Amino acid sequence: MGPALQALRDHVIAAVDARLADAIRDFTGPGGQLAEAMAYSLTNGGKRIRPLLVYAAANAIAPCQHLDWPAAAVEAIHAYSLVHDDLPAMDDDDLRRGKPTTHIAFDEASAILAGDGLQTLAFELLAQAPFSAEQRLAFVRTLAEASGARGMVLGQAIDLEAVNRQLTLTQLERMHRHKTGALIRAAVELGATAAGATDAQRQALVHYAETIGLAFQVQDDILDVTSDTATLGKTQGADQALNKPTYVSLLGLSGAQARVAALHRDALDTLQPFDQGADPLRELADYIVQRRH
Amino acid sequence: MGPALQALRDHVIAAVDARLADAIRDFTGPGGQLAEAMAYSLTNGGKRIRPLLVYAAANAIAPCQHLDWPAAAVEAIHAYSLVHDDLPAMDDDDLRRGKPTTHIAFDEASAILAGDGLQTLAFELLAQAPFSAEQRLAFVRTLAEASGARGMVLGQAIDLEAVNRQLTLTQLERMHRHKTGALIRAAVELGATAAGATDAQRQALVHYAETIGLAFQVQDDILDVTSDTATLGKTQGADQALNKPTYVSLLGLSGAQARVAALHRDALDTLQPFDQGADPLRELADYIVQRRH
Repeated sequence: MGPALQALRDHVIAAVDARLADAIRDFTGPGGQLAEAMAYSLTNGGKRIRPLLVYAAANAIAPCQHLDWPAAAVEAIHAYSLVHDDLPAMDDDDLRRGKPTTHIAFDEASAILAGDGLQTLAFELLAQAPFSAEQRLAFVRTLAEASGARGMVLGQAIDLEAVNRQLTLTQLERMHRHKTGALIRAAVELGATAAGATDAQRQALVHYAETIGLAFQVQDDILDVTSDTATLGKTQGADQALNKPTYVSLLGLSGAQARVAALHRDALDTLQPFDQGADPLRELADYIVQRRH
Repeated sequence: MGPALQALRDHVIAAVDARLADAIRDFTGPGGQLAEAMAYSLTNGGKRIRPLLVYAAANAIAPCQHLDWPAAAVEAIHAYSLVHDDLPAMDDDDLRRGKPTTHIAFDEASAILAGDGLQTLAFELLAQAPFSAEQRLAFVRTLAEASGARGMVLGQAIDLEAVNRQLTLTQLERMHRHKTGALIRAAVELGATAAGATDAQRQALVHYAETIGLAFQVQDDILDVTSDTATLGKTQGADQALNKPTYVSLLGLSGAQARVAALHRDALDTLQPFDQGADPLRELADYIVQRRH
């Protein structure tokens, strides 16, 4: 991770975590477990990539205050989607980043409600954020469109229906574009709105987001395979037995690697018109293709 | 149901159902089951009390256009809460109004996602509604505060924690005020915002909403008992064995009936300053205490 990105990241994590902690500040008494389950779900030690993108996109345009509000909102949506994704009826995961998932640490009902409450919290934060009414409305519209049944939730539905089916490359990209791409794109759009981006700047940032979002997925599939071969008890064959379509299974390993390299170049080219304020975005593109885990 | 309320109700159901159908208009292809599950969850044959309150509150102040937008939003929140409430990990209900619940008609994962998507849809509708930016923001804030972890979702958490515990009257009211009261109050506030209510008008309408919301719950508990005695195989003793605290168990049957009557008078008194535009609200207060099922 480059120096500009590293410095921004430390600031973003502190600011966003403070904003989220403030938003769900504890109450005692009946129902208090809900706030605990929400707080637990937010402190999953994630990379805070989406909040980082809000800040990095805004800073590429102009110095900007109060980014913790939209950044906290997009992280709340991301956290809720992980909690519901991990539920027994969905992916049935007991662990996330080595910690018990919310329905394991609490119970299933609490996890459902905590996810529900985190989604609401995102829109509450955006409606209260210290920005103009027009900006706040644009925030709400952007995040709702990206996270709902035409965006992230649709992506999860496509993913569920795709189990044990063969997907074409087009179908695989449609799934990823909705399931993870939509929220990454929304993060950049929230930053663009906060900083008062021109249409041209917004379009460039959106293209950047789509490009690195896709690069992230392809690199994920590559790492699955390259770490498989180095990991005892988990083989490429086991992954294929799950019938999970990946970029590697569709393009081959070298094809997938070429794809990542092309997306990386595309992302950097898109940032050409921006000055050094966009360095964290450039370093994030580098980080995504260079990461080894 | 009085004539003014009946006429309004027919109009509201048609307008709100059309708005909701338009909002989730079908797409085909992968993930299409999500839209089906959302549509199914919205057509549960409910009474559409909350949309009706949006219209009735607005009409008490001034004739008002485009109420289908906020009315559809509050119904989407209500529908999502029912879908998640019915899940096996929550109340585990297979039937709602004689129809299979969403997780039975589809599957659990689809029900979780449909609920998630319906919540997002509510905020998308409010952000796009043909009202001023300030009004739309007030809509979003009102609905988010009422439905989130300080409102409806908190009420569900309190309800879950209350199983097999003795609640005091104060605790029971706190649970209902959050679980169902908050959204009923929000419906009236959405109408007040749409119609440009004065502060005094808004306060009166909010008090009306809190009063009839509570009356509705007390009447529910009364009907549970009075229909129990007439129904074979379901006795008051069986309800008490569930250890579910009710107004009847805390106040006695005649105490609960006196409470409903007092709330009814309070609701009508609160509407005193309004002209005949408030007749549907008056008839709704009558309906709530006179209903027999």
